[in-house]
Amino acid sequence: MIVILKNDADAQKVDILAQWLETQNVEIHKSVGEYTTVWGLVGDTSKIDTDLIEGLEIVEGVRRISEPYKQANRKFHPDDTVIDLGNSIKIGGGNFQFFAGPCSVESEEQIIEIAKAVKAAGANILRGGAFKPRTSPYAFQGMRADGLKLLLQAKKITGMPIVSEIMDASHIDLFEGVDIIQVGARNMQNFELLKQLGKLDKPIFLKRGLSATVEELLMSAEYIMSGGNEKVILCERGIRTFETATRNTLDLSAVAILKEKTHLPVVVDPSHASGIARLVEPLSYASAACGADGLMIEVHNNPQKALCDGPQALTPDKFARVTQGVQKIINALK
Amino acid sequence: MIVILKNDADAQKVDILAQWLETQNVEIHKSVGEYTTVWGLVGDTSKIDTDLIEGLEIVEGVRRISEPYKQANRKFHPDDTVIDLGNSIKIGGGNFQFFAGPCSVESEEQIIEIAKAVKAAGANILRGGAFKPRTSPYAFQGMRADGLKLLLQAKKITGMPIVSEIMDASHIDLFEGVDIIQVGARNMQNFELLKQLGKLDKPIFLKRGLSATVEELLMSAEYIMSGGNEKVILCERGIRTFETATRNTLDLSAVAILKEKTHLPVVVDPSHASGIARLVEPLSYASAACGADGLMIEVHNNPQKALCDGPQALTPDKFARVTQGVQKIINALK
Amino acid sequence: MIVILKNDADAQKVDILAQWLETQNVEIHKSVGEYTTVWGLVGDTSKIDTDLIEGLEIVEGVRRISEPYKQANRKFHPDDTVIDLGNSIKIGGGNFQFFAGPCSVESEEQIIEIAKAVKAAGANILRGGAFKPRTSPYAFQGMRADGLKLLLQAKKITGMPIVSEIMDASHIDLFEGVDIIQVGARNMQNFELLKQLGKLDKPIFLKRGLSATVEELLMSAEYIMSGGNEKVILCERGIRTFETATRNTLDLSAVAILKEKTHLPVVVDPSHASGIARLVEPLSYASAACGADGLMIEVHNNPQKALCDGPQALTPDKFARVTQGVQKIINALK
Amino acid sequence: MIVILKNDADAQKVDILAQWLETQNVEIHKSVGEYTTVWGLVGDTSKIDTDLIEGLEIVEGVRRISEPYKQANRKFHPDDTVIDLGNSIKIGGGNFQFFAGPCSVESEEQIIEIAKAVKAAGANILRGGAFKPRTSPYAFQGMRADGLKLLLQAKKITGMPIVSEIMDASHIDLFEGVDIIQVGARNMQNFELLKQLGKLDKPIFLKRGLSATVEELLMSAEYIMSGGNEKVILCERGIRTFETATRNTLDLSAVAILKEKTHLPVVVDPSHASGIARLVEPLSYASAACGADGLMIEVHNNPQKALCDGPQALTPDKFARVTQGVQKIINALK
Repeated sequence: MIVILKNDADAQKVDILAQWLETQNVEIHKSVGEYTTVWGLVGDTSKIDTDLIEGLEIVEGVRRISEPYKQANRKFHPDDTVIDLGNSIKIGGGNFQFFAGPCSVESEEQIIEIAKAVKAAGANILRGGAFKPRTSPYAFQGMRADGLKLLLQAKKITGMPIVSEIMDASHIDLFEGVDIIQVGARNMQNFELLKQLGKLDKPIFLKRGLSATVEELLMSAEYIMSGGNEKVILCERGIRTFETATRNTLDLSAVAILKEKTHLPVVVDPSHASGIARLVEPLSYASAACGADGLMIEVHNNPQKALCDGPQALTPDKFARVTQGVQKIINALK
Repeated sequence: MIVILKNDADAQKVDILAQWLETQNVEIHKSVGEYTTVWGLVGDTSKIDTDLIEGLEIVEGVRRISEPYKQANRKFHPDDTVIDLGNSIKIGGGNFQFFAGPCSVESEEQIIEIAKAVKAAGANILRGGAFKPRTSPYAFQGMRADGLKLLLQAKKITGMPIVSEIMDASHIDLFEGVDIIQVGARNMQNFELLKQLGKLDKPIFLKRGLSATVEELLMSAEYIMSGGNEKVILCERGIRTFETATRNTLDLSAVAILKEKTHLPVVVDPSHASGIARLVEPLSYASAACGADGLMIEVHNNPQKALCDGPQALTPDKFARVTQGVQKIINALK
Repeated sequence: MIVILKNDADAQKVDILAQWLETQNVEIHKSVGEYTTVWGLVGDTSKIDTDLIEGLEIVEGVRRISEPYKQANRKFHPDDTVIDLGNSIKIGGGNFQFFAGPCSVESEEQIIEIAKAVKAAGANILRGGAFKPRTSPYAFQGMRADGLKLLLQAKKITGMPIVSEIMDASHIDLFEGVDIIQVGARNMQNFELLKQLGKLDKPIFLKRGLSATVEELLMSAEYIMSGGNEKVILCERGIRTFETATRNTLDLSAVAILKEKTHLPVVVDPSHASGIARLVEPLSYASAACGADGLMIEVHNNPQKALCDGPQALTPDKFARVTQGVQKIINALK
Repeated sequence: MIVILKNDADAQKVDILAQWLETQNVEIHKSVGEYTTVWGLVGDTSKIDTDLIEGLEIVEGVRRISEPYKQANRKFHPDDTVIDLGNSIKIGGGNFQFFAGPCSVESEEQIIEIAKAVKAAGANILRGGAFKPRTSPYAFQGMRADGLKLLLQAKKITGMPIVSEIMDASHIDLFEGVDIIQVGARNMQNFELLKQLGKLDKPIFLKRGLSATVEELLMSAEYIMSGGNEKVILCERGIRTFETATRNTLDLSAVAILKEKTHLPVVVDPSHASGIARLVEPLSYASAACGADGLMIEVHNNPQKALCDGPQALTPDKFARVTQGVQKIINALK
């Protein structure tokens, strides 16, 4: 951490700061220039609050050099994390997985039919929304607990592990049979929820917030991991920008950067990112080509009738085309 | 609502859509051009899911004409909502209020001292964080329930109503004596929390999300209001943009737009928006000048030692200067 | 174009608008609802100024249905534009090209050495900056006219066509021997320059502005094309967002959208988008996978000494690795 | 400037960098930690290219401490720049000015009528567009040279100094009688134009680019000033964000920050920022309240017929109301 002192900093206050920093077990390397004095703090600075120091009257600025996340940091954990769901379904470490299914669970018939269809088309993990975060209180809010029950049935019939989104810590018990719990973009910084999920022994699928930086995403993963649950899967699903041609802007540079900075698996959701079914195919190929560990794709047996998020769902046929194309790219780059 | 059909839309599918829309109690006004057919849907379209229709193969696009929020909409509720906290402290309807206090409650001595100081300087409502949303799991997370107790003590001693942030629906009971419950920017779309708050009879201070549009902020207010709780105070606290000179970009156009679109009170938080104490004064004046109903300002008796968010807190002296300046502006514009 | 009239619009003013619109050769289809009246304008509305109409007191809003660009629009020109540079070097229509070379031309030796190296590694078109747009007036501004001369020499020796950036219309004559003129992101809306380039018979490489929408990029292409020059190559090079982990955010959804909306070739510049050489390889693969018609990549024989934009340049060896990887992806997806 | 070296940096390369830096007349203060080595560069680092150093293999990152602008920097020029247009019309240094007039000059009658009206309503400087930057090549492009002639006539009749936008360096001669030359947002980084304007002895009104940072705006001012022309007026006119309720997001924090960082006058254009005439009044008040040195406001005698940008123009009556309100705020804050 670098602390830049003001030109005219009061000497006594500077001393107080120096003494306090030493109590925090960091060493100070001072570099005094004509116009500016710079301190390099050496040691474990992860617990020092940059905001606190930046607020001091005598300080011009503070810059972190080392990342504030530790357990998610590849520097301290060079090998890829591999999450094993059993039945040879592994996420991360060179294993590419398709998470597919409908935006919302709507009925037993629907979820089972789609589960079979996506399995046949190459998906290994079934997704389906039971609790649905919707901008409008008047929009369909999901089948909730009933939806989870239908998903579990689909799991039983097809043998596919399932992933579904949680919206509140008080619902954790309902997710007992769910293999992977998803945290949606809007809850990426619901820290109370993250803390509760950190106590579980179950993979967490953590979606990047609409305006979250890569570092903030990793800090949210750190919340879960610091609680003891190291099974975190990160998901890039588009960020909010000025562009209106697509719902959000898929940030594939983030995938490449994340693969450097962390050992956690990184999955891409091109369906939500673009909000346009026609773009799912090219963006899936791009995701695989730049090193993603998997894709989460919305598939619906009847996109014309989906109760929510219809525009972004593929038919099983088109999804099968995508899984084949992705496989070709993965093989080509091996 | 406007539905734009594709050039080459299949006639049978178009019929199915028309029939379905009629079951939703909307009338269709058709306008057929050489290249495009446009339908104007007339009636209550607030429950029609634009995404659903946009997803249809035959549809080129859908545009809402009327706003999707109703209870928060000034069109249906022209008079300003006024929230009465008792003791002649009213928010909205031409009453300007200062919400002031520390970022975090740290000790009995601290909160009581600040409470007295901000009251003397012109604040009517005491703010103080007990539950603190922090990006890092390693940062100070607030005194939590104990912090609320200290706030209640400060309320007892000074007679000031208090506002504090909630982070999880399971904590609602702890907020019994708290006069206004704050929903932070990161929880603006924590819909489960909003639903629970909608069942209370207590004012909710709803902060705009870091990348939330004005319409989304109003939809989150609608979540609370549709549950029966009409006492919502909106707060603009800066949005996330590419600019790095300030922590966030305070969006005062949003204040002016909100005053048009909704009857709810609109408060500005210049402390969090800029993250720089020196900017609080000019931005407070700007907020008052453009029609805000109040200001939430961080004040600390010793900003140099604040446990969090130090850089943005004012001393009581500087805060007093701000309240006086704001008062002059309000008087000048009367 | 849709015009939404206000509820309480003055009938006389509405009549005046209707009459005026008819003089513009558009037909009005009226749809009168309880709360809103909507007009669908049918005919050639591309010359009607939406801002003008939106400004009228009686109008609530205006929405375009058809795109405001015509010559760049795939609807009116379904086949891909193919730009032929001779020697079987074609851009667009299924031909994939690599534009490679240094950020800046620095010396005869440097540009010729790199030209040979990138040719050997698979590039067909040599890029090199002579006029350099730099944020700081104190930074190296390029070799300017002398740089162009060196590029022409490199062209002579290697036989490669060249592309270089223009910064002012008064320099056009200097670009006589240059095969493709580049318009940089900062000049994407330098309309006077675009108009002058529209008079040439030479391909224009048009980079997307840092905060330009896809539609604005196409409108800038339209400026060039409406002047008579239909040889426009579009380039996605990253947009400005809140994310700071990369210099800009590469928007590959834009590539997929552009391939739908326009017949013009679309090239991606991953070097400038990310500003990080290590990310060029994965982002190049992603670009090829999602349908780009080419890549512009910075290559330097000695990145450690480049006078500008060093961090994003590859060595020829690494560039060769990229061209091979891209080729594999293109073959896989055929 | 701070240079952070990589953990495993090659010692020989580190030596080469150290030697090179010394040739640049900067001194290196080294701070060696367990995991990182940090160099503080002391001396005039404004000519050192951070990109160049960041690109080196041995370097983890580079951070500037001192600002890269000098002539625009308040540190080296503490007193406000005051631009004197004669007739006691001064900009900056506590003088507040209104720049008002139509978006476009349309006819002699129009510009003279508006000039008289805005003068009567309190404006001191007449604005009017002759060269118009329009997104679409099919939109009205302004009266160009003829428009400037009409402005000069209005100047003669009313005695008001005039400001108008330049779009290309080749037009400079046409602006001889124009008192202030405006550089539009889209040309803020048209560096060739800035260089030419730096050679003039005439005030330049420099608008912030749609996605330009405060620092970039100051660097563009530095381009003009480093050429010898120190008369630069900065203008905040809204930035591009995800919000769609207003055309752009007016960034008033930037005004407060600019007043700290630079001695140049800062004017706000609320008309273009919001694109909505109704918001001009509250945003004008906010601008004055937070310390702006002036306002540029679009006024039209017949907003319903304006050839461009109608929605954002005020009538002279409403403009008079704004000048009076602003005056009250300025008086209140004195």
